[in-house]
Amino acid sequence: MIAQDPSCTLCQSPGGELVWQDGQCSVVLPGEADYPALCRVVWHAHVREMTDLTAPERRHLMSVVFAAEAALRQLTDARKMNLASLGNVVPHLHWHVVPRHEEDRNFPNAIWGPENPGANRFRLPAPAIDRLREAIVQSLAEEQGGIA
Amino acid sequence: MIAQDPSCTLCQSPGGELVWQDGQCSVVLPGEADYPALCRVVWHAHVREMTDLTAPERRHLMSVVFAAEAALRQLTDARKMNLASLGNVVPHLHWHVVPRHEEDRNFPNAIWGPENPGANRFRLPAPAIDRLREAIVQSLAEEQGGIA
Repeated sequence: MIAQDPSCTLCQSPGGELVWQDGQCSVVLPGEADYPALCRVVWHAHVREMTDLTAPERRHLMSVVFAAEAALRQLTDARKMNLASLGNVVPHLHWHVVPRHEEDRNFPNAIWGPENPGANRFRLPAPAIDRLREAIVQSLAEEQGGIA
Repeated sequence: MIAQDPSCTLCQSPGGELVWQDGQCSVVLPGEADYPALCRVVWHAHVREMTDLTAPERRHLMSVVFAAEAALRQLTDARKMNLASLGNVVPHLHWHVVPRHEEDRNFPNAIWGPENPGANRFRLPAPAIDRLREAIVQSLAEEQGGIA
């Protein structure tokens, strides 16, 4: 039985196009206009903080975050990868996994920070879902020693 | 031998008041004006991405990040904890561990996002270094099953 909050958007919808999931969390592509390759890793249960999870749950969630990082790094040739778990607006555990490029909307600022004038011209296409899924599964297998 | 980059600020200085360290990483209080309780967890070697670490190194670094989260949560009564590893400006692995409060400079935006008018009046004092260190050591002991 997964804890749900009827007023929480991440309890009511996956939050994007489903790339990968297991019983505990999902990787989705929300289709952010200026960051089409931005993925989110969403914990299924309505949990507020990483330190509300058990240590094995934390390790599992992070192994998926790092698999998404590895996959996006490989597929988008990112200048830098950004990872963040904020949840001030939607306090349901989710990680932003964001490939950054020098030409993107906010580089080198955070994606929530000041925008570069004229930078909207740069929109890296999202990697094909199938290739992204494949790369995540492969990275997870390496991360978890074969238990993907 | 720890990899160093002579042009990197986090290779040249600890980046804040030292709260806790082991052979691989440090927890520092940089003394951010509007976020005095914001801590950073800094990997000692000049490494760019989480996925450049080995899986055991990643687990170790995250166990320190989560210990800092637990300690700050307990000591600051945060409304929400924020975790982020960006490094677009200083590409040397470090995590921001930020207790957030409704009255802070940017809530519910990211700390790099738009500011609330007049919110600078709210400045939660940093927890005393000794209490913070103690709380981190205790959380690490729980996280790592006694191996702090």
